[in-house]
This record gives sequence, structure tokens and C-alpha cells, in this order.
Amino acid sequence: MKALVYHGDHNISLEEKPKPTIIKSTDAIVKILKTTICGTDLGIYKGKNLYMKEGIILGHEGVGIIEEIGEGVSQFKVGDKVIISCITSCGSCEYCKKQLYSHCKDGGWILGHMIDGVQAEYARIPYADNSLYKIPASIDDEIAVMLSDILPTGHEIGVQYGNVKPGDAIAIVGAGPVGMSVLLTSQFYSPATIIMIDLDENRLELAKQIGATHTINSATQNVLEEIKKIVGDEGVDVAIEAVGIPQTWDICQQIVKPGGNIANVGVHGKKVDFQIQDLWIKNLTITTGLVNTNTTSMLIKTVSTNKLPLNKLITHRFGLNEIERAYEVFLNASTENAMKVIVEV
Amino acid sequence: MKALVYHGDHNISLEEKPKPTIIKSTDAIVKILKTTICGTDLGIYKGKNLYMKEGIILGHEGVGIIEEIGEGVSQFKVGDKVIISCITSCGSCEYCKKQLYSHCKDGGWILGHMIDGVQAEYARIPYADNSLYKIPASIDDEIAVMLSDILPTGHEIGVQYGNVKPGDAIAIVGAGPVGMSVLLTSQFYSPATIIMIDLDENRLELAKQIGATHTINSATQNVLEEIKKIVGDEGVDVAIEAVGIPQTWDICQQIVKPGGNIANVGVHGKKVDFQIQDLWIKNLTITTGLVNTNTTSMLIKTVSTNKLPLNKLITHRFGLNEIERAYEVFLNASTENAMKVIVEV
Repeated sequence: MKALVYHGDHNISLEEKPKPTIIKSTDAIVKILKTTICGTDLGIYKGKNLYMKEGIILGHEGVGIIEEIGEGVSQFKVGDKVIISCITSCGSCEYCKKQLYSHCKDGGWILGHMIDGVQAEYARIPYADNSLYKIPASIDDEIAVMLSDILPTGHEIGVQYGNVKPGDAIAIVGAGPVGMSVLLTSQFYSPATIIMIDLDENRLELAKQIGATHTINSATQNVLEEIKKIVGDEGVDVAIEAVGIPQTWDICQQIVKPGGNIANVGVHGKKVDFQIQDLWIKNLTITTGLVNTNTTSMLIKTVSTNKLPLNKLITHRFGLNEIERAYEVFLNASTENAMKVIVEV
Repeated sequence: MKALVYHGDHNISLEEKPKPTIIKSTDAIVKILKTTICGTDLGIYKGKNLYMKEGIILGHEGVGIIEEIGEGVSQFKVGDKVIISCITSCGSCEYCKKQLYSHCKDGGWILGHMIDGVQAEYARIPYADNSLYKIPASIDDEIAVMLSDILPTGHEIGVQYGNVKPGDAIAIVGAGPVGMSVLLTSQFYSPATIIMIDLDENRLELAKQIGATHTINSATQNVLEEIKKIVGDEGVDVAIEAVGIPQTWDICQQIVKPGGNIANVGVHGKKVDFQIQDLWIKNLTITTGLVNTNTTSMLIKTVSTNKLPLNKLITHRFGLNEIERAYEVFLNASTENAMKVIVEV
């Protein structure tokens, strides 16, 4: 089969690999229909230290048809159309029993990271019963791809960890696909003010179309001054970091008000300065995290009733043969005006 | 009256000052019976940047007798014996209505910081109805002093913000008076393992007497290795920072397990490094804060039934005339074997 293989920083190639087979009875083999590229995949490509082994097939977001199941799989049958969760979970370890599936002792984020991923014609999904979700007929395949990772990540690690509440003023730093997922799912909880901050005017424009009440272009505006104009001197109730670099972390720690939350969603490659000499007194709650996908079933329901304009996030479509080009486009998202790129297999 | 006045870093003196008078109708004048020195007072003395003005009377912990009340005070009368809360609160601003009294827009931690404090014969207490607590007859005056600050600080900012739960493994970094208050009040919630970490063998010994299940001397032992021996490779559920320096923050970020909490209680004078490149994925909750004293009434009840061996924290007693000597002793707590020093007025 064809698959996109990681060979070290800035070195990926579409090549022929053996079709995966059932290894454990709880596995399923999924024939991939659609996949996509995550910011984390770009991070791997660009050499952010994510402990990747060379030779791994990339990708952890996709939908497909079940081709084969192990005898221990009870919730699915051959032919089911499924969303592949970016998180694999055994369902029975200490962490799974706390719904902290991201830290499953025999899973977590392993697809396209520790084991072969889904940017391929077929993928082996361990613990299929816990790691796959049936797609309702009302959800298009390419919309369903958003449910593998970005939508639960934005919702759980941004909105829920950030404790977004009715009436809150919130700021989202980074209008990429995950920042947009935060923007969309934050609206479940009715914040009064939603400020999107980014360098890219096209992304800010899209943010306005899908629910941002205000936008700040951090390339041309003073973020702190603009925040003060919108919500007053004290800052926002919740600041959500959706980039993963020191500069965006710094914005968050500057704009949050006493008693507020900073929810870090971004994947970071180096340490940041925590200005605790100013913030010890502020009664802040700062959260970090990898998505648990414990709200995926709930999100499928909201998406199936067309509550979210997810189609607006899809800007490009490629075939699997063009996946290296798709990476190029997503790497140059700003000049290419790219948000989420769908790869059809 | 006699009062201890701040004149800049390393410059305090006991001197004659005018007796305070009622300024607003919600004020009370309290004749101080007992006061004490807080680690924060030492921070001010040593020049930690806490925005202190020169000429301010120090101190924010004390008990006394109400000498005079303004006509707007309804909950207290002249002659009542009271605990002075370290936090002054108006009760009606945005933050007070969220029980975030530490950020009261006309209060917060102002005693001995923004306005004259309680290391004196008399003190003016603004918003007396919200900032004073009656002392039950069953609580000794010098025990009651622990309820001004250290006990609610340890309980609210360490234990409650840290989300200590039955069965948890917790580590407290810093066995000073606030760390000991965390140790005592954490036991309300029945953690299974309580590890106290400090450099001072006498303090560790006291920690064992009042409930620590394990101690680690960070001067002579490898903290990370010892933690692994006690709770396994993954670390503790809750790490509580009760010192306020980069080294103790670093210990906390190294020993907390996925899904765990770091509760920062320490008052910091400079930034720390946040190793977010390792911790973004750990689903941590990190909290900071100044005490709200919203649990003071509850704590008074637990203390009045002698649930807590607070007497063991009191190591020295001085008269007000000796308060400069009391500062010396507390500054050299390790060689003086000092924990909490009571100053009788």
C-alpha cells in the first residue's frame, strides 16, 4: 500500500509499505477514506522534539471503513464507517479509568508517533472498541475528519480546561485549526466576548465569520492595549494558547485577569518564562494537556445536527499521491491561505 | 503608641506612632493582644519586590480586642475579642461577589502592605464586618493568630487549589509555617501519602509528628529518586510549592504525575522556567494565589474542637519591645530552630 513515511527532520516520502495486519485480537484494520495533516505533524516534520522514530507512517486524523477486526472487537463490524480517534486507549488502566485516555498506559497519542499512522491506504487501530467511533449518516466524511483530533482538542483542552462560562470574556491566541475549534466549541458555553488574536488577516476574517466578537492582529496592533480597550484594564477571564511558542504564552500571561484561567493547547518545543513574581498573587489556574477524546461522542452529536460550520475550515483537497504537496501547502499556510487540508485516499 | 515601621530594605524600627482613629464608618480600631511575623514580612524586609511604601507599619496577622467601631459596623461591638484576617474585603465589589476577596477592589492584602498593619499596639481595620472574626472561648489567643493567614493560606491555596483528594499522594515542598499548615489541613481530605520536603532536619522531624507519612531532606537526598521510591516512577498527584524560589518550583514540575496538580503557595520574587516542552502533554493543573480567607470560618470550627496540633508550630515568644529581635530569630529560623514566633503586645 502507499503510505507517507517519516525519515527524520524535513524528510518524509510517500512510498510502498506492507498492508497492516491484525496483531492483537482487539485491533481493527481500517481502509482510509480521508485523512488530514495536523499542526503536530508539521512540528514533527520541522524537528520539534516529539521523540519520533524514523520509519513510522505519519498521521493521526482520519475516517475510513473497517476492513478486518480481531475476535476481541465487539462494538464494530467489517464495513462500518468510522472516525479514527487520535488517542488510542485500552479502557482498563489507571488513567483510562480516570478518563485520562491521553495517558493510557498502552496507548495515548501513538498513531503516527509511536506506531504507524493513518496517512496511508490502510491503518491498524489498536483497541478498536475504544479508539473508533461510528459516523452518523448525517456527517460528511471530510467533516468527520475534524472529529479525530482538532475538535475534541479545542473543546477539552481549550474550552473545558479553561473553564469557559456564560458571560466570560475569552481570548484565543492562534487562529489555526485548533484555535478555530476552540472558537467554535467555546460558543456551547455562551461567553459574552470572544477575542481571536493572530498575525494572519485572512484567518482573523474567518474567525469573525464563525463567531469571534473581536479580532486583534498581533502583527500590527498592540495586543495588551487592544485587550484593554475591549474588556478593560484587568484582562480576560480565560486566555487560550493555541500555537505553542514562547511569544503566544507570553501574551496569555499578560492578558489574564485575577481569578482567571490560562489553558495551554499548543504543543511546545522549548521552555517558557513563567512570570510568577507577578502572577503568584493573581489566583490563576493554568492547564496543559493532550486531548482525552472523552467528549468525542458528545461532539459527534453536535456536528450531526449541523451546529458547527466546520466546512468553512476546509480550504484545500488533495489526493494521497499529492500528500507531499499538501504538506508544502500547510507549511506555508499563510501565503497559501490554508486552514485544514483534506487528503482523499 | 509603639509600632514596627518599614523604612526600606533591611531597615525596620520600633518607634512611636500616633494611635489610629476611625476614618470610615465601616472601620474598627483593634487593641492588639498578639501578633506574629509572616514569611512575607521577611520577604519585605529582605527586599523582595512587593511594592511597599516606606513609613508603613508592618504586619498582617494578629488577634485583639475591639476598642472602637464606626457607626456602619454591625457584626461586632466594643470589647469583642477578634481574629484580624490578613485580607480586607468590602464584600460588595465584583471580586468579593465571587469570594475572590484577595482581589477586593478596595481591599485584599493591604494591612502592613498598603496601609498600616498590626505589629503595633493598635490597628485600624477597614471593613471590619468582613475582615474580623470572633474568637470562640475554646481557642487560645496565640493559636488564633494562626487563623489570620497561615492556616487559610495553606488550606485554600495549597490544599483546595491543589485538589487534594482521598487516596492521593501529595508532596509539600517547604516545611515552614505555611507548608505545615498545608500538611495539617490536607489531612481533612485523607490523602494516602503525604511527603514533606525541606532542607531542615528539625522541621522534617516536626512534619512527621504532625502527619507526614514520609520526609525527604533535599540537602542530602535526591528528591526525584526518593519520590520514585515512595510513589513509583510517575510521581505524585499533587505537588505544593510553599517556599517561593525557582528551585522549589523546579522540584514541583519534576515530581508531578500526568493529570496532577501543582499548587503554588510561595511568594516569588523572580520568574521561573516553566518546562512546557515536557509538560504540555501532561494534563496538569497549575494554580497560584493569594488567600481569600473564604474558609476562615470553617477553619475556626476545626481549630475550636482541637482537631489540629497548632501549638506545635509555636517555638518562640517575645514582647513587642523585642520585635526586632523576633525578626532576627525568624530570619535565622534554621539555626534558631524557629517556626512561628508569637509577639505579645
